[in-house]
Amino acid sequence: MTSAAIIRAERLEQFIADAFRAVDIPADDAATIAQLMTNIDLRGLDGHGVFRLAPTIQRIKAGGINLKPTIMVARETESTALIDGDNAVGHLAVNKAVQVAMDKAGKNGVAWVGTTNNNHAGAASIYAMMPLQRDMIGIYMAVGSANHLPPWGGTDMLLSTNPIACAIPGLEEPPIVLDMATTVASYGKVKMAADRGETMPEGWMIDACGKPLTDPTRSNDGFLVPIGGYKGYGLALIIGLLAGTLNGAAMGKDVVDFNADMKSTTNTGQLIIVVDIKAFAEVEAFKRNVDTVIRAMQGSAMLPDVEEILVPGQRSHEKFERYSRDGIPVVAPLMAKLDALAAELKINALD
Amino acid sequence: MTSAAIIRAERLEQFIADAFRAVDIPADDAATIAQLMTNIDLRGLDGHGVFRLAPTIQRIKAGGINLKPTIMVARETESTALIDGDNAVGHLAVNKAVQVAMDKAGKNGVAWVGTTNNNHAGAASIYAMMPLQRDMIGIYMAVGSANHLPPWGGTDMLLSTNPIACAIPGLEEPPIVLDMATTVASYGKVKMAADRGETMPEGWMIDACGKPLTDPTRSNDGFLVPIGGYKGYGLALIIGLLAGTLNGAAMGKDVVDFNADMKSTTNTGQLIIVVDIKAFAEVEAFKRNVDTVIRAMQGSAMLPDVEEILVPGQRSHEKFERYSRDGIPVVAPLMAKLDALAAELKINALD
Repeated sequence: MTSAAIIRAERLEQFIADAFRAVDIPADDAATIAQLMTNIDLRGLDGHGVFRLAPTIQRIKAGGINLKPTIMVARETESTALIDGDNAVGHLAVNKAVQVAMDKAGKNGVAWVGTTNNNHAGAASIYAMMPLQRDMIGIYMAVGSANHLPPWGGTDMLLSTNPIACAIPGLEEPPIVLDMATTVASYGKVKMAADRGETMPEGWMIDACGKPLTDPTRSNDGFLVPIGGYKGYGLALIIGLLAGTLNGAAMGKDVVDFNADMKSTTNTGQLIIVVDIKAFAEVEAFKRNVDTVIRAMQGSAMLPDVEEILVPGQRSHEKFERYSRDGIPVVAPLMAKLDALAAELKINALD
Repeated sequence: MTSAAIIRAERLEQFIADAFRAVDIPADDAATIAQLMTNIDLRGLDGHGVFRLAPTIQRIKAGGINLKPTIMVARETESTALIDGDNAVGHLAVNKAVQVAMDKAGKNGVAWVGTTNNNHAGAASIYAMMPLQRDMIGIYMAVGSANHLPPWGGTDMLLSTNPIACAIPGLEEPPIVLDMATTVASYGKVKMAADRGETMPEGWMIDACGKPLTDPTRSNDGFLVPIGGYKGYGLALIIGLLAGTLNGAAMGKDVVDFNADMKSTTNTGQLIIVVDIKAFAEVEAFKRNVDTVIRAMQGSAMLPDVEEILVPGQRSHEKFERYSRDGIPVVAPLMAKLDALAAELKINALD
């Protein structure tokens, strides 16, 4: 177990905002990004929050991000919009997309809003969860920012782990929040296993012969495996077409590996669908029915050696409650990187 | 290989319509159901087309279906609707839901239409494909009609194989049509393996100890396995909440096993989302980009022993072309059931 410093959310948020201001992101935008990144860490979605700060700053310094973007509605109908991210830090355009989608769903019952010319925006679920505050359901999809998945049976890495998230509110229970890559493991998990000197379980990756690959330091020799075999390939493909191709964003061969190439425009695409619960049901009755479903799942008899049945988002919710109260753990290797970043940017260190 | 008769689509459609008229379904409705069921068989989606004719007639004879339904828009906003199926044969209300959704999407860019108080409606993809004719994309989800899936780690069968389908058009290429259960195998596949005296591969089912179950005749002692483990469980749960709970339709404990109980109202729920391509892109340019993605996937280098890379819906499309031209194969055991049904209903036999 790596040791971790415990950092209060307010402090983390301030640190992230300081970092973005230090590279000339306007204060408003810096604050928005900082709030969203911190939200990701509050839910324990490691690898998508402050973990991505240094690489994002690096991309900014390399000239790969537009610091003074004009994020605009490029196309619009009553219930749809296409948001042009103007190559900003990705969180900003998705945040705007969700706001537009909630407003349109409030008027018309549902909205479908895409982004184009955008960048990586962090964890899917924080955007899917935003509509909850207005008694709406959110569904979010994105084209991942590096291709590690071939089509089923193939070896050309044409697809990313294209994630999908969905948030549905309960009444007394916390919301159900699904947030999943369409591969068995995300590439982040593979890199984490390599960092820790661990072996991967069979089923995460295969090599170029189709054999299980379990050594994470050899990940460049293999491919991620989609969930359910050809089914997960199908899901990744569909999500890529809806969140990427439909928005005029990158998909397939056009996807830029954001870890390997710090400069090229990524043209990342995302999609948010928002549906207003009251268009279909009395809000409180619906939430009560969701509670019933949640409790039925949690109350199921269990397989031997299983201690608890979870619903999607339950662990993240528990972390959110704990981290909001006690602070967010930042593991030592990450803290070292953030200290180095603070020195480089001449801002106050995190701890 | 079981021998099969080859039946022309027009003949199959007429036979199905005859059967429904013989049990007092009005001629218009009988024709609509027959056309949809035949469409399912034309795409080779065995188990969801004419295979379901005898059980549906049996449910009608048991009084489990409303023969003279008033299928109505129960709730409506600019871009959403809830269709009350009035306990009709399920295809009718979903067909209506897709029509309403296409009209609303044509006006407002997107529509989200649910069904409630409905019944099993056959294969998901035929509904997801309907919007293609209007240059729209369709996404369909449904609550399955029997629970064979417990929550991850559990043994109470609270979930069905809740399917999702999505259809996206190409320009010169056939559309991409994903149509998948959220379990590794559908329950129909298990029953088919039992009929054929085959063993199931590990990964399809587990027994009450969590061990692989490979004998399909013991399927009552076990559970289906979701794709990607807890991820597929999450997908099945979300689809059930969106297609069932949100519509006031059955979900979880309330789902009636339509094979075991021929009489109780199933209150099946479905969901169709339709998005108008021109709200986001020039239609022809978009379709051309989809072609590019399709060809990139199909053109990928391959793993050893792989002969072809497919995109979702490709095999079904090939069957559709072949069966439209040459006729639809009906295997001998199914033909025997349909002959018995014809005799029972006093209609002309199929062959």
